[in-house]
Amino acid sequence: MDINQMLPTILQKNNIARIENRKLLIGDRRRYPFALEFVRCSTVGQIGDALKAMVTQGGGPLQVALTTMQFVARQIALNEQEDSLRTFSDASQILSNSRPTNTTMARTLATLLGQIVLWYTCESVKESYNSDLVEFVDQLIETVEKRFDEDYLKMGKLGSTLIDDGDSILTTCFAEHSLFLSLIEAKKEGKEVQLFVPETRPYYQGSRLTAPSLVEIGVKGSVITDTTGVSLMREKKITKYMTAADLVTMDGTVVNKVGTLANAIGASYYKIPYTPFAMSPDATKEGVEDIVIEIRDGKEILKNSSVDTLDALYLSFDIVESSLVDKIVTPKGIFKPDEIKENFGR
Amino acid sequence: MDINQMLPTILQKNNIARIENRKLLIGDRRRYPFALEFVRCSTVGQIGDALKAMVTQGGGPLQVALTTMQFVARQIALNEQEDSLRTFSDASQILSNSRPTNTTMARTLATLLGQIVLWYTCESVKESYNSDLVEFVDQLIETVEKRFDEDYLKMGKLGSTLIDDGDSILTTCFAEHSLFLSLIEAKKEGKEVQLFVPETRPYYQGSRLTAPSLVEIGVKGSVITDTTGVSLMREKKITKYMTAADLVTMDGTVVNKVGTLANAIGASYYKIPYTPFAMSPDATKEGVEDIVIEIRDGKEILKNSSVDTLDALYLSFDIVESSLVDKIVTPKGIFKPDEIKENFGR
Repeated sequence: MDINQMLPTILQKNNIARIENRKLLIGDRRRYPFALEFVRCSTVGQIGDALKAMVTQGGGPLQVALTTMQFVARQIALNEQEDSLRTFSDASQILSNSRPTNTTMARTLATLLGQIVLWYTCESVKESYNSDLVEFVDQLIETVEKRFDEDYLKMGKLGSTLIDDGDSILTTCFAEHSLFLSLIEAKKEGKEVQLFVPETRPYYQGSRLTAPSLVEIGVKGSVITDTTGVSLMREKKITKYMTAADLVTMDGTVVNKVGTLANAIGASYYKIPYTPFAMSPDATKEGVEDIVIEIRDGKEILKNSSVDTLDALYLSFDIVESSLVDKIVTPKGIFKPDEIKENFGR
Repeated sequence: MDINQMLPTILQKNNIARIENRKLLIGDRRRYPFALEFVRCSTVGQIGDALKAMVTQGGGPLQVALTTMQFVARQIALNEQEDSLRTFSDASQILSNSRPTNTTMARTLATLLGQIVLWYTCESVKESYNSDLVEFVDQLIETVEKRFDEDYLKMGKLGSTLIDDGDSILTTCFAEHSLFLSLIEAKKEGKEVQLFVPETRPYYQGSRLTAPSLVEIGVKGSVITDTTGVSLMREKKITKYMTAADLVTMDGTVVNKVGTLANAIGASYYKIPYTPFAMSPDATKEGVEDIVIEIRDGKEILKNSSVDTLDALYLSFDIVESSLVDKIVTPKGIFKPDEIKENFGR
């Protein structure tokens, strides 16, 4: 099953990243839904800058990273870059450093490098591809993408089991494939649900990505301001709180977009279950001390908000202690936070 | 002491409302700090529409209401309106209905009408002002304003006793005179404090009114997104949570700008005291059942946020249960929520 046909516009692979005319194109989520535009990158440096500038976010950088490896292979084939492992590892470094908190991209790139090293050290590998580097890398990426798609579908199936007919679900930011596939599956099963979508300042991923995507899949969604979720909980209008997770550590600590903590505490106070979706809990991180939180420029808030002479502080991510988390949906199953280590630990 | 000289620009009486060339001018808080502009109203209907349209908010409508009574007296003197109590009561009705949640304006207008009725029914009152309605109303308003100024100063003195050197205070929206006079007093006493200011979507009262006003009084303030206060509590960077209160009922329930509840629950979770400032707890309202929450158009959120074809819900106010409130600062003293009724009840 091609999940691209099921997903809303902004989550379709071609709209996240693709190669066209020797350029890597990144779907510009800052412009959506006003326009479907692409930032065109000629170098890996430009790709890293685009990720830093939030051209895409959430799971977007992972897809960009995979496509970048294909882009680098093509640059090497065209003699635009040196034919060496170093070229790939430099690219990987630039990408991994661009957004430090969500480590799925960095870990996926590390795994890919471990396979690309075979190309440069193992003659039989090169021979089996007739020395066609592009074909070798394309096949690597295709395998990875296929596995991710399978994982997304599994999480969608699992997530849908947590959704009941009549649910009124609060989310935060843009929970992408896992939540959307859960909603699509729930809808297929005849469950009627509605979502409340915090706009998610300062980049409005909620009102600009989540809300229009809900319209596309035919699920009712209402945009609210970022603090209104807790107010709706007080009015008993929220039955579930579900988000993506940029990072889950082995002790079940969840890292996600700023705003997730305030809602998780509200959910705990009003006894509403909080369920994040995590594609790959990070076995290299035990707990809070190992988390690297990206500090972004406070001026990013002021751009829409007020005069730029003011002081501002932009914490882009929240750390949510495991005691506030009910269950975590992963491709391997739905786990309590204290079951993460036994299922994902090294 | 003229408190106008102490207060930041946007809180100075002339910048909230004034009469000029037969028009009532309302300081346009939607344009501040980009510009200091005024909306000019020729009729009470226009004034009511301006209040509905959020030209001013918080304590602003109260000052506008007082000035409107002076404006109406002048219209009567110029034979532009009928010389009757009805003219004043109609004006009062229009103003009170324009923003239903904060009842201080409505209650103040009711008291004023109770005094204006004397003008129309008691010859000796009329005689003592030589039949000069404008002078009579001006004196009434001057008396009310003087009492409010005294109350603001008292709350500032009391509020400052709750502020310690080194405090890091979270607020919400624009807490106006009471918080600013508390900060000014604390500063005078040599206490150094800093504030974290949620921008307060969708009208940005935090980043547009509070933050620039803090700059004016020389207190450090940092703009944050609306959910970041709770994240900073987790990092032990917040020592107090202080807001205004649009309404306090006799059982100590607090109504204030949406966002107040999420922060109050966060404060309770992290054991940080929440102290609202309330000029006049409402003796006509026992508790939650008596509160009228203004429902505003969801499209007000989308204007800055996304395409306007989406569904949106704008809860403008939060109801905060008394168990989440530490103390309430009033002109009569600082009280626990369960002490409100004995001090303000009928």
